[in-house]
Amino acid sequence: MTDDLQAIVEDIHVKLQERLGEGKVADYIPQLAHIDPKKFGIAVVTVDGKVHSAGDCNEPFSIQSVSKVFTLTLALGKHGETTWNRVGREPSGSAFNSIVQLEQEEGKPRNPFINAGAIAVSDLVLAGHTPREAIGEILRFVRYLADDEEIAIDPAVAKSEEATGYRNFALANFMRSFGKLTHPVEHVLGVYFHHCAIAMTCTQLAKAGLFLAANGRNPMTGHTVVSRQRARRINALMLTCGHYDGSGEFAYRVGLPGKSGVGGGIMAVAPGRASIAVWSPGLNHNGNSLVGSLALEMLADRTGWSVFGH
Amino acid sequence: MTDDLQAIVEDIHVKLQERLGEGKVADYIPQLAHIDPKKFGIAVVTVDGKVHSAGDCNEPFSIQSVSKVFTLTLALGKHGETTWNRVGREPSGSAFNSIVQLEQEEGKPRNPFINAGAIAVSDLVLAGHTPREAIGEILRFVRYLADDEEIAIDPAVAKSEEATGYRNFALANFMRSFGKLTHPVEHVLGVYFHHCAIAMTCTQLAKAGLFLAANGRNPMTGHTVVSRQRARRINALMLTCGHYDGSGEFAYRVGLPGKSGVGGGIMAVAPGRASIAVWSPGLNHNGNSLVGSLALEMLADRTGWSVFGH
Amino acid sequence: MTDDLQAIVEDIHVKLQERLGEGKVADYIPQLAHIDPKKFGIAVVTVDGKVHSAGDCNEPFSIQSVSKVFTLTLALGKHGETTWNRVGREPSGSAFNSIVQLEQEEGKPRNPFINAGAIAVSDLVLAGHTPREAIGEILRFVRYLADDEEIAIDPAVAKSEEATGYRNFALANFMRSFGKLTHPVEHVLGVYFHHCAIAMTCTQLAKAGLFLAANGRNPMTGHTVVSRQRARRINALMLTCGHYDGSGEFAYRVGLPGKSGVGGGIMAVAPGRASIAVWSPGLNHNGNSLVGSLALEMLADRTGWSVFGH
Amino acid sequence: MTDDLQAIVEDIHVKLQERLGEGKVADYIPQLAHIDPKKFGIAVVTVDGKVHSAGDCNEPFSIQSVSKVFTLTLALGKHGETTWNRVGREPSGSAFNSIVQLEQEEGKPRNPFINAGAIAVSDLVLAGHTPREAIGEILRFVRYLADDEEIAIDPAVAKSEEATGYRNFALANFMRSFGKLTHPVEHVLGVYFHHCAIAMTCTQLAKAGLFLAANGRNPMTGHTVVSRQRARRINALMLTCGHYDGSGEFAYRVGLPGKSGVGGGIMAVAPGRASIAVWSPGLNHNGNSLVGSLALEMLADRTGWSVFGH
Repeated sequence: MTDDLQAIVEDIHVKLQERLGEGKVADYIPQLAHIDPKKFGIAVVTVDGKVHSAGDCNEPFSIQSVSKVFTLTLALGKHGETTWNRVGREPSGSAFNSIVQLEQEEGKPRNPFINAGAIAVSDLVLAGHTPREAIGEILRFVRYLADDEEIAIDPAVAKSEEATGYRNFALANFMRSFGKLTHPVEHVLGVYFHHCAIAMTCTQLAKAGLFLAANGRNPMTGHTVVSRQRARRINALMLTCGHYDGSGEFAYRVGLPGKSGVGGGIMAVAPGRASIAVWSPGLNHNGNSLVGSLALEMLADRTGWSVFGH
Repeated sequence: MTDDLQAIVEDIHVKLQERLGEGKVADYIPQLAHIDPKKFGIAVVTVDGKVHSAGDCNEPFSIQSVSKVFTLTLALGKHGETTWNRVGREPSGSAFNSIVQLEQEEGKPRNPFINAGAIAVSDLVLAGHTPREAIGEILRFVRYLADDEEIAIDPAVAKSEEATGYRNFALANFMRSFGKLTHPVEHVLGVYFHHCAIAMTCTQLAKAGLFLAANGRNPMTGHTVVSRQRARRINALMLTCGHYDGSGEFAYRVGLPGKSGVGGGIMAVAPGRASIAVWSPGLNHNGNSLVGSLALEMLADRTGWSVFGH
Repeated sequence: MTDDLQAIVEDIHVKLQERLGEGKVADYIPQLAHIDPKKFGIAVVTVDGKVHSAGDCNEPFSIQSVSKVFTLTLALGKHGETTWNRVGREPSGSAFNSIVQLEQEEGKPRNPFINAGAIAVSDLVLAGHTPREAIGEILRFVRYLADDEEIAIDPAVAKSEEATGYRNFALANFMRSFGKLTHPVEHVLGVYFHHCAIAMTCTQLAKAGLFLAANGRNPMTGHTVVSRQRARRINALMLTCGHYDGSGEFAYRVGLPGKSGVGGGIMAVAPGRASIAVWSPGLNHNGNSLVGSLALEMLADRTGWSVFGH
Repeated sequence: MTDDLQAIVEDIHVKLQERLGEGKVADYIPQLAHIDPKKFGIAVVTVDGKVHSAGDCNEPFSIQSVSKVFTLTLALGKHGETTWNRVGREPSGSAFNSIVQLEQEEGKPRNPFINAGAIAVSDLVLAGHTPREAIGEILRFVRYLADDEEIAIDPAVAKSEEATGYRNFALANFMRSFGKLTHPVEHVLGVYFHHCAIAMTCTQLAKAGLFLAANGRNPMTGHTVVSRQRARRINALMLTCGHYDGSGEFAYRVGLPGKSGVGGGIMAVAPGRASIAVWSPGLNHNGNSLVGSLALEMLADRTGWSVFGH
C-alpha cells in the first residue's frame, strides 16, 4: 500500500487545489493573521516508518493547540492518573474558549484539549520548575518524539499571544480564583503560550504523533514513549474532545482520533497504521482547519482507516 | 479465540459477582424500580456468528435508550443525511435530559442519543404514519436485526413512562414551540415511549447490533442493513455521544462505540470483531450501567478490542 | 391636579399619535395577531376615585400577563407567605418564557411574573378545586377589584393559547418533573390560559389596580383587599420583575411599579396617587408595549410620580 | 419625627444585639477577614440635615461595592447617557461575580453594580487619565459628597485585593477580550480595587448618599450633584440591581433603593426623607449584610418609608 499511499496523498493535494483559501485564517493572534491562506501540506508516516507527503509539507507552521497532546502526554508521565483530579475527560459541548462551564464546574475544565484544560495541564507540567525550564522540557520532549532537533518555538508568536491573549488570561485567573492553579498565572500562561508557539512541519508533526499510532512506541526511533494503554487513552481523548465543538462532526466524517490547532494544523492517528499531519490555515466555524478536515476525510475514505469499521 | 472468549466472558461474570448491586436502579420509571439490582448478563456475538454469554443473558430487560440506535438507523434509512437538519452530531456536555442547550440552540437537539434528539428521531420515523404503525415498524425492524420474532414491547413500561414522563413532555413541547416537531406531541412521545419499552435479552441485543460490527451487513442473516459508511458513522456517533455526559469516560476506559439505557443495558461494538450486550440495573451518576461499564472495560482489556489501538 | 391630569393624559395621547403602530404585535397567540396595531388607550384613576382617560380607553383588550398580579394576590390570600416556597422573588435576568433558569433552580421559578412562576401560582390558586371553579374565582376577584361585573374571559383567546402554547406546556411539564406542581398539567394550564384571556378596558384595569396605589384598600368601593404591607410588597415585585428582562429599563425610565402583558397592556401604580392602565399592541424586544411604555414615561415625567424622587 | 427617629435607631440597635455575629464575614479579601463580626453601626441623615445614629456608627469600614454608586455617578457626569453603551441596566439574575452572562452578552455587563459592570465603569472614569489621577478624583468626589476631608482609602485592603482578586482579573480580561475595555486591565483594576477600598463610617456614608434622597442636591452643603432626573434614575438602579441576586428580596422586605458591599455596609435612600447607612460584617448567602438588611427592614417598617406605599 506504500506506493498507493503516496499516490493517494498527491491526489488529495491535487483535488483540494480549488478549495484552498476557504475558511477564515485566525486573526486573534496577530502573528498568525499574515499566513498565506492557500498553504497546504500533508504528511503520512506509516508504522513501518515510511513517509508520504505532498504540498507544503516541509514548511513550519504554528502548531498551536496540537501541542496540547504533547503536554498532556508529559503531564501524564509526571502525575499519572492524578492528572484527572485537575481536568476532566468529557467533551465540552461549547466553544474552545468558553468560560461558562468553568463556572458551573468550579474551575475544573472539562477536558485537556479546550484552552482552560490545557492551561491546567501547563500548571501540572510546571510542577515546581521555572517557566523557562518547563518550556525547555516540553520542547525537548517534542524534539524527542519527532526525532528532530531543529524543531523550535517561534518567539514572536508567543509574544503576540502574551500581549493579546486576554481570554486566556481570563480563563487562568478564573481557575486561580477557584484555587485550581498552583503556580502564578503569569508563569502558567508563559508555559502555555510558548508550547502553543512551537513551529513544526507536517512531516515533523506526523513523526511526533507516530507513538500514538503504534501502541506507545515510536517504531522509527525504538523509543517507548507511553504504555499501550495510555496510547489508547490519549487517542480516545483526541477522538471525543480533539476538535472542540466539532469533535462529533470530525468523528462522523473522518473517524480518526485527531487534534486541531488554530494555526490550521491537524494531527490524526490511524491506530496500527499511520500518523498523519495536515496543514491549511483557513478555519471552519468551530475553529478547525476547513481544508485540512476535508483532506483527512478523503484520506480516511480512500484508505478505509476509520477506527469505526475495518 | 472463540474458546478463549467464552472463558473471558465467564471470568468477567465471576469477577464482578462482588460488585453486583452497586449503583442506583432508575426509579423515575416506576416499572423499572422493581428490578432485582443484582441481575447481570453478558453476551458477545462475534462476526462469525458465534455467541458467548454468561449470567442472566437470556432474561429480557427494558432496553430503553439503547433503542435509539435502532430508531436512528431507521430514520437515516427513510431520510438519509437530511436527518441532520433536525438533530446535531455533537456531544452535549450536559445531562441526558437537559433542556438548557435546547433553548440555546432553538429546539435543535445536539445529537440523536440524548432524550430530545431521540424524540426528534421519533418524529422522523413517524413520517406521516400513525403512532401504531410507526411503533410496529420499529418493532419489526428490531426483530429483523436480531433475527428473532419473539422480541416484544412491554406495554406496562410504556404506559408507566407515558404517565410520568413529564420531562420528556417538556422536551417535546419545547421543540414543538420552536416548530421542530411535525407531528402532535402525543403521537411523537407515544412512539418514543414504546420503542424505549422494547424488552430484549443480552443475546438478542448483541445479535441486533451485529450489523454495526460487520460494516453494515449482519453475517448471521446475510442481510445488508446499511452501507459500510453508514455503519461507521453510527459507530462514531455512539462513541462520541452514546453515554450522555459519561461518553468521554467510556471512550477512555472501554474504547468501543456503545449505547447505554437507564434499564441498565449497554450495547457495544468492536468493529470487525463482535457485537456485545451487557445488563446490570444499577446506574452510575451519569445514568449508565455501573457494573455493565466495568464488564465492558474488562472485556476490552482482555481482548484488546479497543478501537484506539490494535 | 385633577384638571391638569386630564389635560396631561389627552396631551400624551396627541403626542403619541405619530408613534402608534411601532413595535411588533404578538403573533404567537393567533387571536392576538389580528388586533389593530394603532389602538391606544390610557386611563388614570386617582386615589380619590377620579378617572382621567383618553383614546381607546373603553375598548376591551386581552390583559394577558397583567392578570398575574391578580392571581398572585389571590394566591397570597389563600397561602400567605408559604406562596414563596413555590416561587421566588428575584428578577430573572432572562426572557419571559426561558426554561434555562428553571433547570438550574430545579423547577422553582424565579418570580411570579415570568410564565413559569405564574403557572406555579395557578397551581396554588387551584388548591384542590376544579379548573372551572378556579377560573370562576379569579374572574369574580377581578370583577370585585374593578367593581365591574361586565369583565369577561375571551374564550377564543383561551382556546387559541391552549392549542398553541407549547412553550407553556413545556414549562409546566418541566416543573411537574421536579414535583413542583400538585395538580395535573392540563388543569393548571387551563387555569393559566383562561386568566390570561381576561379582557378588560384601560378604565377597568386602572380601577382593578387601585388597591395597590392606596395601601391595600380600594377607595372607590371601600373594600380592603390586602394589608398595607402586602400592597407594598406586590408593588415591589412589580417594580423588580414586572417587565421581564426590561424591568430595569422600566424602573429607570418610568420609576413606577408596573406589570405588562403581551396584549399590549400595562398596569402601573403610583403609590398614594393613582392607578394607571395603558394599551398599545406593538411590543418592544422584551415583550412589553412599546408605545405604552412611552406613555407611562411621559406621564411619570409630567406628574413627577416616580417612586424614586418626590 | 426627629426625636422619634433617634429612638427608633437606638431601639433597632438594641433589638439586633442578639443577632450580631450572624452571617459569614467575607474572607476572600484577607484584610476583611479580621473584622470583628459583632460590629454594628447605623446612621440616618434626614433631608433637613439631622443625623441620627447608634452603635459603631463612627468607625470606618471598607465600603467595597457601595462605592460603585459613587463611581457610576462620576461616570454619568463625564459620559452622560453614553455610559449605557458600555453597561446595561438590568438585574443580572445571578451571582455578583458571575462570568456566565458576560459571555452570553459578549462582554457587556448587565448593570453597573455587579463586579463586571463596575469594572466597566472604572474604565469610563479613567477616561485617559492615569490610575492615580482617577483614584484621586474618585476620592475627592466622595469627600465632596460627604463634606468630609478625612475619608481615605485603606491601602492594605486595596493591595490585598490586587494580590488575590483573581475573579476580577478574570472578568476584566474577559471584557478586554471582547474589546470592551479601553485601558490596560491593570490600570482599570487599579482604579477598581482602590475605590472599593475606601473606608467610611456610617455617618459619612449616609451623608454621602444624601443627594440621592434629595433630588440630586445635598441639602447640607447646598451642592447640586446631579439633576433631579438622574438622582431618580440612580435610585431606580439601586432598587433593581443594588443587592446582586438578592435585589428582589431587598425590595420586597425593605422597599428602599440601596447598595450593599461585602464589607458589610449598605447605603439606602428614602427619597424625600433620608439617607441611611448600616454596617454589620456578616453576610447572607447573596453577599449582602445579614443584620444590616434586618436593620433596614425594621427601619422601613417603623418609619413607613417604603417607596411602595405612603
